[in-house]
Amino acid sequence: MKERILEKAQELYLKLGFRRVTMDDIATELGMSKKTIYQHFADKNALVEECSSYFLNKEKCREQEVAEQANDPIEEIIMSTKMMREMLGTINPVAFHDLQKYYPKAWAQYLQHKSHFLEVVKNNLLKGIEKGLYRADLDIEILSRLRIESVDMAFNPDIFPEKKYRLLDIQLAFIDHFIRGIVTEKGLKAYEAIK
Amino acid sequence: MKERILEKAQELYLKLGFRRVTMDDIATELGMSKKTIYQHFADKNALVEECSSYFLNKEKCREQEVAEQANDPIEEIIMSTKMMREMLGTINPVAFHDLQKYYPKAWAQYLQHKSHFLEVVKNNLLKGIEKGLYRADLDIEILSRLRIESVDMAFNPDIFPEKKYRLLDIQLAFIDHFIRGIVTEKGLKAYEAIK
Repeated sequence: MKERILEKAQELYLKLGFRRVTMDDIATELGMSKKTIYQHFADKNALVEECSSYFLNKEKCREQEVAEQANDPIEEIIMSTKMMREMLGTINPVAFHDLQKYYPKAWAQYLQHKSHFLEVVKNNLLKGIEKGLYRADLDIEILSRLRIESVDMAFNPDIFPEKKYRLLDIQLAFIDHFIRGIVTEKGLKAYEAIK
Repeated sequence: MKERILEKAQELYLKLGFRRVTMDDIATELGMSKKTIYQHFADKNALVEECSSYFLNKEKCREQEVAEQANDPIEEIIMSTKMMREMLGTINPVAFHDLQKYYPKAWAQYLQHKSHFLEVVKNNLLKGIEKGLYRADLDIEILSRLRIESVDMAFNPDIFPEKKYRLLDIQLAFIDHFIRGIVTEKGLKAYEAIK
């Protein structure tokens, strides 16, 4: 039951924003009473926080799966991009701002997830250098930060007003540019072959 | 006289931060009385604002010179990088934060300058595509924003703590990565030849 609530809450929060969706909305959508939801979550804050950690944990698991399944670091990026492509289709950028503004604890979880993502990117860069797919002189510390921060940059409406840009287009352009900026000649061939 | 004050104020502000440097410091360094400074600038706010627009105007002129002198768009980026390299040696990142936090009018000037810089980058991308040095399928709107925002990102101490990273190293790594991410094979050869 708890998982059913989390799944539905996540769906609504990501689609409409954390602030706009009420406990009533979630109860109605699930066809259950609000009382049932409150049996599992003390209040909206608790639900938002559990929802975020539930979502981030799933992300983390998927990333690990991708890292294991991919044959090389470039394929790993392409597989994560595919995953992101599916996910972003369902996220309203408002959800991201809501979290940052109104749910500091959930936002802190996101920031922690970011430092995990930083490690994923660093590992990817290291593996790519080892395999001769990425340039050996990359500054891993600096470029991994550029990569993870540009994910957030794409969500920033002051830089990319939502009416003018599609979040997915921005993220895809960033990833494509990031890969091209780090590859060797061999890496570029591999990238263009599987892209 | 006014220009002499602006030059010295700029030097001190950039080296030590806008907040820390007092009118007394500037007077002492110039070997003149504070009264003389106040004859030209109503107060510190006025001096900071004039100083910022003085600095940004010089930047703008230099950028225009570079755009005219450069033989091609890649050379243009490399020449601006050289300029930036000299300039950054003299800027304390604190100066940047001070402006943003305590001098909103001067900061607004900086933001306006940023939108000018955006146009410079877009023009550079267009010229590079025309000359076959950059890939024809670049998303100019998105990548020009990535470029200018990454300049600010490098100044962000939450992302790049000053104790661990040198501002110049970050900017140089960003520029190198940016260029490699946009060039064609021909462009890459041109870049590596003049780098």
